[in-house]
Formats: sequence, C-alpha cells, structure tokens
Amino acid sequence: MVLAYLVAAGMSRIGRREETSRELVVEAFKEVLDAVDPSSIEAIYVGVQSEVYEHQIMYGALVAEALGLLPKEAYRVEACAAAGALALHNAVMAVRSGLVDVALAVGVEKMTAKSTEEVTDALMAASDIVDQLSGVTIPAHYALIARRYMRQYGATEEDLCAVAVKNHRHALENPKAHFRKAITVEDCLNSKPVATPLKLYDSAPISDGAAVAVVASERAARRLTDTPVKILASAVATDTLSASQRDDMTWPAAVWEAAQRAYRQAGVGPGDVQVAEVHDAFTINEILMYEALGFAERGKGYLLIREGQTYIGGKIPVNPDGGLKARGHPIGATGLAQIYELYLQLTGRAGKRSTNAELGIAVNEGGVNSTAVVHILAV
Amino acid sequence: MVLAYLVAAGMSRIGRREETSRELVVEAFKEVLDAVDPSSIEAIYVGVQSEVYEHQIMYGALVAEALGLLPKEAYRVEACAAAGALALHNAVMAVRSGLVDVALAVGVEKMTAKSTEEVTDALMAASDIVDQLSGVTIPAHYALIARRYMRQYGATEEDLCAVAVKNHRHALENPKAHFRKAITVEDCLNSKPVATPLKLYDSAPISDGAAVAVVASERAARRLTDTPVKILASAVATDTLSASQRDDMTWPAAVWEAAQRAYRQAGVGPGDVQVAEVHDAFTINEILMYEALGFAERGKGYLLIREGQTYIGGKIPVNPDGGLKARGHPIGATGLAQIYELYLQLTGRAGKRSTNAELGIAVNEGGVNSTAVVHILAV
Repeated sequence: MVLAYLVAAGMSRIGRREETSRELVVEAFKEVLDAVDPSSIEAIYVGVQSEVYEHQIMYGALVAEALGLLPKEAYRVEACAAAGALALHNAVMAVRSGLVDVALAVGVEKMTAKSTEEVTDALMAASDIVDQLSGVTIPAHYALIARRYMRQYGATEEDLCAVAVKNHRHALENPKAHFRKAITVEDCLNSKPVATPLKLYDSAPISDGAAVAVVASERAARRLTDTPVKILASAVATDTLSASQRDDMTWPAAVWEAAQRAYRQAGVGPGDVQVAEVHDAFTINEILMYEALGFAERGKGYLLIREGQTYIGGKIPVNPDGGLKARGHPIGATGLAQIYELYLQLTGRAGKRSTNAELGIAVNEGGVNSTAVVHILAV
Repeated sequence: MVLAYLVAAGMSRIGRREETSRELVVEAFKEVLDAVDPSSIEAIYVGVQSEVYEHQIMYGALVAEALGLLPKEAYRVEACAAAGALALHNAVMAVRSGLVDVALAVGVEKMTAKSTEEVTDALMAASDIVDQLSGVTIPAHYALIARRYMRQYGATEEDLCAVAVKNHRHALENPKAHFRKAITVEDCLNSKPVATPLKLYDSAPISDGAAVAVVASERAARRLTDTPVKILASAVATDTLSASQRDDMTWPAAVWEAAQRAYRQAGVGPGDVQVAEVHDAFTINEILMYEALGFAERGKGYLLIREGQTYIGGKIPVNPDGGLKARGHPIGATGLAQIYELYLQLTGRAGKRSTNAELGIAVNEGGVNSTAVVHILAV
C-alpha cells in the first residue's frame, strides 16, 4: 500500500487576531520551514468555510501567492467546519495518486471582524436551505440534539459542562490556545444561554487562526525528516444536512461511517487509540464523538467524561490541546489544528500536555455531523 | 502509469431555469445512469462558485443526498469559475490514489434568481480583496486585458466580436445551449457596453445549469463501458489574483503553465489536438487561450479567428458547443460542461457539430486566469 506521511505541521496563535487570513497562513507556515524547503511543495489545498468573512473566494491562488508558491497547483476545499481535515485528505489523495510528491494542506478562517449575527448567518448556510427557512440555526440544531440525548440516555447539563471544564483545563498548557483560563462546572451552568440547554461555556468561540500540514510520499518523507508520522487512514463520509431527515438525531452516522472506514484502512480498532482530537463545537458533540469513534457504547459516552476518563492521564485522553472549546474554532482551520496537535503528541513535542501516545485519531465534521473526516496517525 | 478513465458524462439544459441547484444536478446525473450503477460510485466532488446564490455551503453532502448516495465521501472544491474542472481533477486524483475505484465529478451553479448586481458582487470576490477595494470588477479586469491586447498586437473590436459570432454559430446545433441564435459582427459591435471595449455580446451570460462526469480506474472502466475515454492529463496551475501584480496582463501565465504540464503528462503537443474547449468568459479570453495552449504564437491568436480557423471544419475547432458565450456559463458547472462536450466529440455522440476528433483539450479558469485547469482526453 502506498502510504502518505505527515512530515511537518504548523499553527498560528488562535484567538481574536488583527491579521488577515493570508497573514495568519504565513504565520502558521513559518513553523514548517525548518523541515521543508518551500520549493519542494507541488500542490496546496486550502480549507476555508465562507466567502462572506473577507468577501473573498479563490483562496488557493491567494495562499499560493502569499507563500511565494505560484504557479503551483492550488485550490480550495469546503464542507463548512470539516474544511481543514478535507484539505489534509486532499493532500493525502494527491500524494497517493503519484501526481505530486509533497503537498501542503492549509486551513484558515478570519471571523472576528464580523459580528456574531453575521457569523451565525454565514454558518447557517451549512444547514440545508429547507431547514434554514424553518429558522433552525446551527446552535439550535445542536441544542435539539443535546435535549434529545439527555432525555434518551440520562445525561445531565453537568455532564455537558464537564466537557468544557476538561478542555479549558487542558488548554492551560497550550500557549497558542484562544482561552487559557480554568473554569468550573458552576461557571458553565451559570453562563448565559446560547440555545438552551447549551450555554456560552458549552460553545466553541468565534476565532481567527490558521494551521498547515505537509504531506509527503515515503521517498520524500525520508529525505525531509527523521520523525515522519504515518497517515494510516484518511476517510470521509456524509449524512443528510437536514435535522429532520435523520433517523436518530443523537447518532452521528457519518462520523461512525468515516471512523469504521478509517479503522479498516489502518487495521486498528478503538482500543488501539492513545489520544483523540474530536470536534466539540458544542460540548454535547464531544460526547457523541466518544460513541461514534467506539470509545464508549451508544448512549454511554457521557459516563466517560463523568468518570474523568478523557483527561490527559485517563483511559483515552481527548482534546489535550483544549479542543474547539478552549483552543478555539477558526472554522476552516480547526481540522488542521487537530492534526497539528496529533503531530506534537506523536513526535514528543507536546510538552506538559503530552500523552506519550504513538497512535492518535482525529475527527473533524461540518454541517452538524453531515460531513465527517477521520484521520489515524501513528509513529 | 495508472490512468483514470472518463466513462460517462451528463449535462442539464443550460439557461434561465426554474429548478434549484440540486434539481439541476439530478437532471444531469440521469444522463449517466445508463452507463453507471449509482451504487458503484464511491466519492463525489462538487464544484460550486458561491454560497451567496442559494445561501448554501456543504454542497458535497447536499448533492450526495439528492442523488441517493449518502453516506459516500463528498465535498466541495472551489476556485471560482474553475470549480467544475477542479471537481474532475479531484476525481482523477482520487481514482489514481487507489482510494476509490469510481468517482463522480459534479459542477453546478444556480445564478439567475439573483440580480446582475448581486452576481457581479459575488464574482468580484474572485479578485484579491486589495483589487476589490480599488473598484476593479471582473468585467473591468477583462476590459483592461482587451484594451492592452489590442494596443500591443493590433487586434480589433471586430476580431473580438468574431469569437462571439463563431460560438453562437456553433451553438445552433446544441440543443442544451443557453442561446441558439446566430449573431453578426455588427450585432455584437452595436450591443450595449458592459466594460468598454467589451460589449454585451462579448460577454458570457449569467446561466443556471449542472454537469457531471464519472471517472473510473482501468479495471472499473472496462466493466462499465465499451467506449472509455482516457484522461491523459489533468493539471492545475496558479497566477496572482491581482491585475496589478502580473508582468504582462495579456499573458495568462497560469494557463500556459497548466497546459505545459498537461502536454508533458499526456506526451502530446498542441499539434496533436483536434478539438478544444476553452474558457471564453469574455471574447478576449478565447483569443488568449489560443496562445496559451500553443495553437498560435504569442500576440497572434486573433489571426486564428480572423481567418476562421477555429470553426468546426477549421484547422483547430474551438468550442463546438458554443462555449461559455452561447452554451452558457453557470459558473461552477462550466468546467464540466466543457468535459461533457469533449466526451460527446470523442465518442461520436456530437451529432451535427461533430469534429471527428480523437484527442481533445479543455481549459477552464477562475479569477481571470489566476487558477487554470487543463485536461487532455483521448480515445
């Protein structure tokens, strides 16, 4: 089997930034320059959610120019918040196709120059227009899921908040995180409502940021680095956009499907995973991810966080960088921010938040789990 | 070398349509159902320009659902008007990577529900925001190129109009074209100004439509069809978005670069091409494409149309379906509309507009030639 390798990764500081999207990409890219001679990059795939934030499309050529990489192949991939991991998936396909030897995956979003209302409207485009006409925003869709999950399985608002508490705790050791502030379950329960039962501290913030990953063929990887990370699996699956069309709204079918494909590609199972980066756009979704990745049985994911098993040092550490909740959630960048964290974890660069893991998984999704992207990496 | 094969193609009627984008995709997809069992499709790549037209992103999952193909891999690719050909390029990479056996490329755009002002604004996002702030619209950028080209090489407004006359003539035999009406050079010269020297009849229309292409590995292609078309080359290159940053605005450097790569991949040269589909968003651009594809020397492309050499029956027939100008230009669909035409031409399905070609080339571009995609197909 022709494998692809992750040979370097970079990330900007995440948060409320003054820089434009292209400047954030340049910041993230600088971090890979020790490992990679830019001239070796043959193709660039850029994950961006929305043209609205900067009134800009064509991010492929834009990024190629900003990085001094014209006239290389470059274009954009998109499935809302899954765009970042899709950029990596595209880079993996490009390398495995033999058409390019070294590819750059880029994820970026510049959101904070827009109002919360404008961002909510731009994100709402990730719902089927049919649902949009019914007035279901993205937070409302997650709120429906949370309510239904709690009723069906007995989870509580405290369990949801426990996810936020963990991710804020983890982010204390992440110098690039949007938030580095410990919170308590009470802080979360008392925070203002966003879409009841979800509160402000159940919700990932609106952030600016960029992340990049360099993917290479085996031959090129050997030339470029002594610490290549194997990309054992890269899988994508889809589900209906509309909340009303799913058999069970608490079950992220596309994530399950992508994870099953990824486990088959990699020849491993949930028990082999030592660290996970999952898509906690809202706290409820981290719990759903525990189940869809096979870390817990269906309907029992909330027990994992209740027992503290997903902290660093627990049975299966999840989001050691703080996740979307505390690291931040610049939409198009998020999937590659997850990969950046796995890269640090697997190559012994994670410092005080190290999990000592040698095999990790990342799940990035868009459109409330309607497009799921799962990667499995190992050293 | 692992080749990918085009095994089927479909296209909706192009024009001012009442249907939504997903309905247009279903219409185009019906045309491939004779050749392809939908269950054999493993991945879908969708080219769409803008989220503004239907307040919708996530076209991957949306299209997968509309075609009954959930939970297959599906996502969007974008580089403005090059999105359609990029969907094909992605499908080629997917098949060549060995990760999928059969992939579906989809291009679609639903534009006419918006006003001309809204469409112009959405397209302007394909310029670097720096140029947008200067007020340079996409038609204005092409107008600058036309003026400069005429001054530099001696072409006339009549030469530009001759491209429109040819493409309207060709579309008379295309039942799916947006316009089936012959025009004269005088009609064109007297049409109302869009961005002087470009007039209405120098300009591709705002259209709705969809096109699809099915790409398969050699093994799958043999199973699916007796008339597979070889995808000899699929190449992408980029140039600066900003008009002010190009050395010579009359030279489409990314198109030249993509064409050079494609000719190398295919092991052929311009003299081997028997039919071409080129990106005549404005008439001037068809002339630039003659030069960038190597059909004419730099600065001499206009002589080809002046001499009538790009008509069906001429030395090198260009846009036998009517091109963007007369077939129509639903932005994200255009690149695959070109591939649809090559498929018909190379498999003896082009009826009265047949060129009897066995090798053809297509060039699709976005952002005024800042992202170029070139495919070479042969039987």
